[in-house]
Amino acid sequence: MSGPRTIVVVGGVAGGMSAAARARRLDEDAEIIVFEQGDYVSFANCGLPYHLSGEIARRESLLLHTPASLGSSLNLDVRTGHRVTGIDRDAQEVTVETEDRTFRQPYDALLLSPGAVAVRPPIAGLDHPAVHTLRTVPDVDALRDSLEGLLEDRPADSPAPRAVVIGAGFIGLEAVEALVSRGLQVHLVELADHVLPPIDAELAPLLADELAAHGVDLRLAVSAQTVEPAGASAIDDAGETGSTGAVTVSLSDGSRLAADLVIVNVGVRPASALAREAGLDLGPTGAIRVDVDQRTSDPHIWAVGDAVEVFHAVTGATGPVPLAGPANRQGRRAADSICGHRTTPQASVLGTAIVRVFDLTAATTGANQATLQRAGIAHEVVHIHPGDHAGYYPGSETMHLVASFSPDGTLLGAQGVGRAGVDKRIDVLATAIRAGMTADDLAELELAYAPPYGSAKDAVNMLGFVAQNVLDGTMPQWQAQDLDKAVATTLVLDVRSRSEFHAGHLDVALNIPHLELRERLDEVRDAAAGRAISVHCASGVRSYLATRVLLSEGFDARNLSGGWITLKALRPGT
Amino acid sequence: MSGPRTIVVVGGVAGGMSAAARARRLDEDAEIIVFEQGDYVSFANCGLPYHLSGEIARRESLLLHTPASLGSSLNLDVRTGHRVTGIDRDAQEVTVETEDRTFRQPYDALLLSPGAVAVRPPIAGLDHPAVHTLRTVPDVDALRDSLEGLLEDRPADSPAPRAVVIGAGFIGLEAVEALVSRGLQVHLVELADHVLPPIDAELAPLLADELAAHGVDLRLAVSAQTVEPAGASAIDDAGETGSTGAVTVSLSDGSRLAADLVIVNVGVRPASALAREAGLDLGPTGAIRVDVDQRTSDPHIWAVGDAVEVFHAVTGATGPVPLAGPANRQGRRAADSICGHRTTPQASVLGTAIVRVFDLTAATTGANQATLQRAGIAHEVVHIHPGDHAGYYPGSETMHLVASFSPDGTLLGAQGVGRAGVDKRIDVLATAIRAGMTADDLAELELAYAPPYGSAKDAVNMLGFVAQNVLDGTMPQWQAQDLDKAVATTLVLDVRSRSEFHAGHLDVALNIPHLELRERLDEVRDAAAGRAISVHCASGVRSYLATRVLLSEGFDARNLSGGWITLKALRPGT
Repeated sequence: MSGPRTIVVVGGVAGGMSAAARARRLDEDAEIIVFEQGDYVSFANCGLPYHLSGEIARRESLLLHTPASLGSSLNLDVRTGHRVTGIDRDAQEVTVETEDRTFRQPYDALLLSPGAVAVRPPIAGLDHPAVHTLRTVPDVDALRDSLEGLLEDRPADSPAPRAVVIGAGFIGLEAVEALVSRGLQVHLVELADHVLPPIDAELAPLLADELAAHGVDLRLAVSAQTVEPAGASAIDDAGETGSTGAVTVSLSDGSRLAADLVIVNVGVRPASALAREAGLDLGPTGAIRVDVDQRTSDPHIWAVGDAVEVFHAVTGATGPVPLAGPANRQGRRAADSICGHRTTPQASVLGTAIVRVFDLTAATTGANQATLQRAGIAHEVVHIHPGDHAGYYPGSETMHLVASFSPDGTLLGAQGVGRAGVDKRIDVLATAIRAGMTADDLAELELAYAPPYGSAKDAVNMLGFVAQNVLDGTMPQWQAQDLDKAVATTLVLDVRSRSEFHAGHLDVALNIPHLELRERLDEVRDAAAGRAISVHCASGVRSYLATRVLLSEGFDARNLSGGWITLKALRPGT
Repeated sequence: MSGPRTIVVVGGVAGGMSAAARARRLDEDAEIIVFEQGDYVSFANCGLPYHLSGEIARRESLLLHTPASLGSSLNLDVRTGHRVTGIDRDAQEVTVETEDRTFRQPYDALLLSPGAVAVRPPIAGLDHPAVHTLRTVPDVDALRDSLEGLLEDRPADSPAPRAVVIGAGFIGLEAVEALVSRGLQVHLVELADHVLPPIDAELAPLLADELAAHGVDLRLAVSAQTVEPAGASAIDDAGETGSTGAVTVSLSDGSRLAADLVIVNVGVRPASALAREAGLDLGPTGAIRVDVDQRTSDPHIWAVGDAVEVFHAVTGATGPVPLAGPANRQGRRAADSICGHRTTPQASVLGTAIVRVFDLTAATTGANQATLQRAGIAHEVVHIHPGDHAGYYPGSETMHLVASFSPDGTLLGAQGVGRAGVDKRIDVLATAIRAGMTADDLAELELAYAPPYGSAKDAVNMLGFVAQNVLDGTMPQWQAQDLDKAVATTLVLDVRSRSEFHAGHLDVALNIPHLELRERLDEVRDAAAGRAISVHCASGVRSYLATRVLLSEGFDARNLSGGWITLKALRPGT
């Protein structure tokens, strides 16, 4: 390591602050200056929705560090209200603006952590003061002020204030949960045809049901088009009694929603203007291009966080991935590189993410099905619905897990929704993807089992077992999205019990409960009349046994992945 | 796959039943006979303590399958009350005894899943009817009967019945929890010097504290020597008021404990007598030797479960590992091999295990420190005390994690104790060990983060960060067990706050709060007088920063792994 020198960090949250702290630990003598354009550094970005809800009661809890605490603990020179407006790469100086002045600051190493800016959708009227976003401490301050205004001094019998949340992504869902917990009537508007677009289509309906159960009015596959001040003529098509609200939000399907409060969260884009103006290489998505040590195309400049381009570990696609975990670790790696420390190159991200939606958890890691299809990556998808722990121990909750595997068995991605245990399984699967594990490896993972925690054959083992059976031909399968083809060209055999069958079934299905199958093979043969047989039960377990019996009898049989549960989620009208 | 044939399974629980079920799914035509000497098959072994406590209220919940249900669903011929007493390997026949008769059953493939038998410790008087074990359904039936007898018709003001539990292993601890939940006064006797011997010495005191907080009287490093009927002369040294009990348990330290009920669980040994008599190869521990497909030294005989010898993935040691997860997966693999299916060889186990002790969870995977030391495997140990989720979100609980790494960074083992989140981290770490991951890999794992679930830098990442710093020399460390040497030969520098210091500290320690260290280096220099400096704080975080400052100033400094928390656990008298 060289002697004293100046490290300048632009952006004092997540990646930037991780880099500054690590740099100090590696180099006691360096001058380390952090310029943050906002008023806060190192705040808990991901905690903002929970301060809105009130779960995080004290605002100060969000402010993990202050310039003073970082100065005394780490001898960092942290300056808020300082905006870096230009980089003179030849001189190795940045231009800095404050309220009062503009100055130039030389650097030996420059680290950019500018983050992302909220995408502003093409909606007329977003400047109305009832319209908010939720990305910063001032954002949540403004939202809480608005909420308090709406909630205080209300007559006990007055209708609940109304909110429209535009965008059903991770933060949008957290905002919805927060607003409902504060007693608001919430409309959620999403352009895609299902909530939480990063989640596969067959899992999203579980979240939609949970939202509906908590009174959220979900509007899918529509866009908000205008936000207008509510006049005397305001019309509300939502059908609820209530105030006319401060604004009226008009949707692309012609409906109009009255709202006292609007939150817009339709995604972010890299805040890479400074880097672009300095002539640093950007990727096609506008994110800053970096090497495995987070170094940009200028050898004296590093970049981390939401503004940089990363490489997806499964698809190889490049683009920004705005997640706190990778940002923090990138900051640490960049500091290692800046300080001449041993570096641990990391060229890719998995995009692991999680969200709580009332009592449900939804999580994802690796590539989802839509991404794999777009990328043209061959894969088999398996669906299971195991308990989070042994069914014989009280309180077991069903998890809905989906995983994709390459034809050679490599795990490519996994997702889960459920009331318990989903976070654990997704973390295990994220670790498995990073390790390049296969279905065989998952089958043999040795996870901690006692009845309150798991099962002797854990859900992750089960994913491996099922994928093994699919990939080696032991259990051919069909997918719920191929229902129409199955109905048109095969015999659909429903091996659930009579009572399950009568509670709801496909019109064309032949019902033979799986325990009777061995005795009733002639009926199957007659009904199939030479066609293949598309077997299903509720979850895929009994129909697996039935499929094995049929295959051994010479039938061309395959099992519905995820069974009736997955089919009903994907095709609720069925 | 060949045509119809006879597969005989000896032992109808866990591995045996997994094998039978899998064999049927792979071979519809085979005759599959399961002989179980007991009255129950496929029961939930690991659920027994929770039926004792009453959490699993219905006894039937433990009986996952019956011979009838297995017959109708899987066409298995399951026979309880059938004991296999001999194997004629040349004739490929087993001898079977029932209450009424003895017969020979031919086999094409024989699978042995005989399980383990409880070790009977050298304690006089174990035949007394008040003495129980807890391994089978009849065991728990007898225990529940005894409990009901003790608890019913008691005057409201009568003292609680007393139990002595001998052996503080996994099942012993579950038994203690169950008995306390039923209102008993429990004494727990353990031969080792800490509870749960598979857990490292510095974590076990956390469990001991939890036991004490629930009124359990813990007797460590003593053995029970006799169990005698309580006479008029019975003496109880425990000091509580109470009944004289049915028996008196005398310990090796001379103390005597009155008890109405005694549970003995001091471990198991392989039930390999049948295999030995048949001349199959056994290992030095008496476990049946098998290959990676679970095949014994006889090509027509396979074996699985608690009776077989496995290879430890980290240490390479061989011996039995009585765990449900491996048993079930071994059964599945054995069936694949028997049926000529593609096999997925698995040569090793990690010994992942978990136990709930009241509100605490303790879990382990891979090799613990004692095992590594015995095996002569070089390793560095790191201790951390992170929250299970972001500290700024309510309800975060401290986890105490220990992990061992080889000098090249490979993860060798991990353990954890805490009130939340421990099961998840141990499962991730078990996956990481299986994948051969290193500290660098842990540092870069991308786990699911939202405030209710984790942290941007998850506890697993933190283990990686700390291990990286230790292994690459960024943070030299010292261990709590080397306290005496540190006191004798170095300056102990306590960088906690003054109030923390005054609440308890080492007599020899110099206290300089870490925020003052940069200003007070001369004091350190004077006090050290050329000696090395052993730094500590509460958990190891602030002292890491201090260690870095000292190193950069030319001091020979190292940080206490796990800080004061780990030191106090290991050396409570300090």
